[in-house]
Amino acid sequence: MKRPVPGEEEEEEERVLVSEQSWRPCPKARRRLRGCLEWLKRQLFRVGEDWYFLFILGVLMAIISFMMDLLVFRLYEAHRWLYQEVGDVLVLKYLSWTIYPIVMTTFSTGFSQSITPHSGGSGIPELKTVLTGVVLEDYLAIKNFGAKVVGLTCTLAAGSTVFLGKVGPFVHLSTMAAVYLGKMRTSVMKEYENKFKQNEMLVAAQAVGVATVFGAPISGVLFSIEVMSSHFAVRDYWRGFFAATCGAFMFRLLAVFNSEQETIAAIFKSDLKIDFPFDLLETFFFAIVGAVCGLLACAYLFCQRWLLAAVGKNRLTAKLLATDKPVYTALVVLLLASITFPPGLGQLMASRLTMKEHLISLFDNRTWGLLVPNASSLADPPGKDPWALWQEWCHPSATIFGTLAFFLVMKFWMLILATTLPLPAGYFMPVFVYGAAIGRLLGETVALLFPQGIHSEGALHPVVPGGYALAGAAAFSGSVTHSISTALLVCEATGHISHVLPVILAVLVANAITQKHQPSFYDGTIIVKKLPYLPRIRSRHMASYQVVVEEFMERRVVALAKSSGFEEVLAALDTSADAEYPVLESAAEPSSSPSSRATSTRRHPKGRSCQQRGHLVTAAPSSPSCSSSCHGPPCTRPITSSSC
Amino acid sequence: MKRPVPGEEEEEEERVLVSEQSWRPCPKARRRLRGCLEWLKRQLFRVGEDWYFLFILGVLMAIISFMMDLLVFRLYEAHRWLYQEVGDVLVLKYLSWTIYPIVMTTFSTGFSQSITPHSGGSGIPELKTVLTGVVLEDYLAIKNFGAKVVGLTCTLAAGSTVFLGKVGPFVHLSTMAAVYLGKMRTSVMKEYENKFKQNEMLVAAQAVGVATVFGAPISGVLFSIEVMSSHFAVRDYWRGFFAATCGAFMFRLLAVFNSEQETIAAIFKSDLKIDFPFDLLETFFFAIVGAVCGLLACAYLFCQRWLLAAVGKNRLTAKLLATDKPVYTALVVLLLASITFPPGLGQLMASRLTMKEHLISLFDNRTWGLLVPNASSLADPPGKDPWALWQEWCHPSATIFGTLAFFLVMKFWMLILATTLPLPAGYFMPVFVYGAAIGRLLGETVALLFPQGIHSEGALHPVVPGGYALAGAAAFSGSVTHSISTALLVCEATGHISHVLPVILAVLVANAITQKHQPSFYDGTIIVKKLPYLPRIRSRHMASYQVVVEEFMERRVVALAKSSGFEEVLAALDTSADAEYPVLESAAEPSSSPSSRATSTRRHPKGRSCQQRGHLVTAAPSSPSCSSSCHGPPCTRPITSSSC
Repeated sequence: MKRPVPGEEEEEEERVLVSEQSWRPCPKARRRLRGCLEWLKRQLFRVGEDWYFLFILGVLMAIISFMMDLLVFRLYEAHRWLYQEVGDVLVLKYLSWTIYPIVMTTFSTGFSQSITPHSGGSGIPELKTVLTGVVLEDYLAIKNFGAKVVGLTCTLAAGSTVFLGKVGPFVHLSTMAAVYLGKMRTSVMKEYENKFKQNEMLVAAQAVGVATVFGAPISGVLFSIEVMSSHFAVRDYWRGFFAATCGAFMFRLLAVFNSEQETIAAIFKSDLKIDFPFDLLETFFFAIVGAVCGLLACAYLFCQRWLLAAVGKNRLTAKLLATDKPVYTALVVLLLASITFPPGLGQLMASRLTMKEHLISLFDNRTWGLLVPNASSLADPPGKDPWALWQEWCHPSATIFGTLAFFLVMKFWMLILATTLPLPAGYFMPVFVYGAAIGRLLGETVALLFPQGIHSEGALHPVVPGGYALAGAAAFSGSVTHSISTALLVCEATGHISHVLPVILAVLVANAITQKHQPSFYDGTIIVKKLPYLPRIRSRHMASYQVVVEEFMERRVVALAKSSGFEEVLAALDTSADAEYPVLESAAEPSSSPSSRATSTRRHPKGRSCQQRGHLVTAAPSSPSCSSSCHGPPCTRPITSSSC
Repeated sequence: MKRPVPGEEEEEEERVLVSEQSWRPCPKARRRLRGCLEWLKRQLFRVGEDWYFLFILGVLMAIISFMMDLLVFRLYEAHRWLYQEVGDVLVLKYLSWTIYPIVMTTFSTGFSQSITPHSGGSGIPELKTVLTGVVLEDYLAIKNFGAKVVGLTCTLAAGSTVFLGKVGPFVHLSTMAAVYLGKMRTSVMKEYENKFKQNEMLVAAQAVGVATVFGAPISGVLFSIEVMSSHFAVRDYWRGFFAATCGAFMFRLLAVFNSEQETIAAIFKSDLKIDFPFDLLETFFFAIVGAVCGLLACAYLFCQRWLLAAVGKNRLTAKLLATDKPVYTALVVLLLASITFPPGLGQLMASRLTMKEHLISLFDNRTWGLLVPNASSLADPPGKDPWALWQEWCHPSATIFGTLAFFLVMKFWMLILATTLPLPAGYFMPVFVYGAAIGRLLGETVALLFPQGIHSEGALHPVVPGGYALAGAAAFSGSVTHSISTALLVCEATGHISHVLPVILAVLVANAITQKHQPSFYDGTIIVKKLPYLPRIRSRHMASYQVVVEEFMERRVVALAKSSGFEEVLAALDTSADAEYPVLESAAEPSSSPSSRATSTRRHPKGRSCQQRGHLVTAAPSSPSCSSSCHGPPCTRPITSSSC
């Protein structure tokens, strides 16, 4: 080894001080590796950007959804425990049954309304208007997020007493999260805010909202498109799919981590047999299920809209809703809880089950009519065993047909009443369960009529009422929301696709009936709440638009008579800012009714029709009667006329 | 009873003669009934009109699809019978194996090309351009219909030798049927022809095309939207759904009537177990399946486009394709049939199975690796028993891994070669089967690596390779066609939805890889065939467009030098019809390269830049180099650049 001379040593020391990096091992390989990583980073950022965003959104919403489910379950268990622990004193039982949901919902109302009034309701109607381009101030602000999460948790903890779900609020929540994340991104990336991009993200966020509730990615995307958009760009498709898949995956994954399930499976996993799901002739009964669901959906939508308007008009309820929302909530929930009190009417409507248990019991593979003789006593509380859930529907003094029919009759108005509550809540799930009950009732009837199955020859294939429950759930919820993808939602949520064809058939029949006679639940809410929204284009047929000229016509036209003098012309110029004035044969005409005026216009065409036309064309955009076609309150006449 | 006087009698007789109707019983009730029927008719016609149309379309296409399947099956059986009957003489066996498909495909080519050249290929690329508004003359004319039906039947009868499907042609067929039915309607209803309506019907017809092949209504709608449209109006949604449901229902119904199935069931009904479909950790392997499928799809698409162009450029093949299409078909099919000859290489690639049998065997619930020791001899012909189909993949000298890998290697180029054949055929089904084989191979490998299942603790849950086959089929076909809905298609076609989450995951991974590097199969064909089509908008990022000014720039600009005399000006006026001429400092500059010219433009801005800009703007629309942004041949550079 060469001994370094003093000067060399100094030089080397200097080199070390200047470039310390060259002393690490393998500089070349490291540089190459760093190059590769840089390239990878650039590649990922070039395509990806959105991917990260959507991934975070999906995972975040899935975690929130799962944590909420967990918390709600614990709160519900607490209520059940309380109800069991108070002993057999009926008054105590009644109090423990009613006070708990009242406290929960009142807190939910008070808390969410005190933070922001936007956090009430489902949020989907407002989102529909946002997506059409209307700016609803603060509606997507992040401060609603906390209010809605806390409020929704309390609402859900009140359980099947108030019978409300979480789909709508979750759609709202995930859009709020998307907007907030988008703002974070623009501030981090120092990009300018891109409205188009924001809109794309909103569409993806809606899909996440549905997907993280049902764990159903494909139908989440489709449902959100159907319910909220009027147009869709196919190239935005993957955003929704990716985000919804991340959300659904995470949501089911957490269930596995929490040891609820052994592996990833459907949320309402059904055990319907798949070797012979239904007989061909049963298709007819499935169509009947669809028709019944369609008719009931019409009635439901009409009554719901009527009640929503009536509650706003009635002096007492309007005053309560304006000043004391929690009091209104408490009163309504007291009524609902009293009716569902298990030793009272509640025993006839399986009120001890949660909504999820309702669904699982209704989708049961077995025919209840055949099981009744073996049913054990009703005194037992509903346990963990999903095989025994159906016994809640079995009452000694009423057959299962009686309890199901009673459930349907009572829940009809209870559901509608619950939609007037000013708390954060979803209205899809209740409708879904209601539809399943309709289907189960009809299915059990078919099974009673054909105990040996419909096909007389060959092997016996008994009727499966659970399949009808699937069809009913899809058909009723689909017709209430005017969407077809509920057929797929049912399949994804139960993990059972063998019934897909009859289910779609039922959904199509139900939709054909409802779409013709009633606006959808969300459109109806938009109408009642007078949100700015364009009525949707229903058909290319001109005859289907009941829009008359009257609605666009300027009625306060200042006209001049042929015999008018300078005074009248001056007065006309003073009263209006029009650029042109119609000239009439005599001064008496303008005071006649619009229709007769229209005739008179036709009667005197010479020298005036051109002016008149010119006037109408130029004046129309500024006329107040034209606002129905712009961003004003929606054009209610063409939509509601068929329902009146 | 009062005896009528003669005058009265006469009067009554007259009344009878005048109004004969009043003598029928219950005139009032009948009138009311007639009124009701009129009302019903009016109601149905008001909403319905489209319903009838879509119903007829769906049912018609289902019947055609089913009849074609039946006929193809019979023809295939005939071939099998012929092959069995010729005895053990190898030459005869070879001749019977090869001649039959050659005759079929040659007839298919000759027949369809002699009637109309539009009937070749799948038809989806052309439909894509039609949907963007381009008018392709006669492409949707009904005369193609017969040619395509007959040609397709013969192509399919050639079986797994040529390995072609029927999805694309069925989409083309159903749009032709829709256009024809639409023309009939306008002539019957005496309506004017409505282009918008026609477009809506085309979208619905595409859904019918997919739905009647797979019996899958929902994914039929989604796939047709994804593959063919760029935008979608949600209110047209139900048309597709309704027509596709009618089609799928009828298609499955006919199978029941024909005693193929006991009741309506999925077309490739799987028997995968649903209680524990996959372990959580397997998700990782599903992602790998997606990545492998994505990479192979890139290679497939690149090679396919290359070969399609090469066949057109090569002098021999180009001449054959121009003048003797049947000869080209015969030569290619001879090659393909020789390779699939069962006593030769065919035994290593299960060539005795039809495509449907391929799929059913690949989606098998069992793990082949564990079954091999019990396999019976290969000499038996593949029977009706679906449980024995897998034995075709089992060869004594090669493991199932060997046969699957050999199948993948050979079919890769055979598939690509088959796409160059000028006969009516679909290219989706082969890709679908190929993907299933990729998935099965990887699944069997995972099952070999983890014979006890992946989860070490708790109950044993062995790996199900069939699930990987599902994921592979969806991922490969999805990435080749750039669509996500193949995930749902797999679920609907097999009636098995438990694997939906990992399948979507694989599809998303595969699509992420392929969409970044290659245009889709249909876009690639559009590029090679130089069909008029706008390149799709890929991203809002400006950086993702590799369009440079060069492409729009007019290069042959006639310029004048400052020192030009009258002669030069006259010459310039004669050589071009421009309205403005740039004036340069010296005459030497225009001959320099465009890039230096661009610099020079910047160097001499005074008094010229305005003219120059004005010139470029006015001249651009008429310049030939600008055609890539108009309806000329597609802008190939930005699309293909990444693949070169």
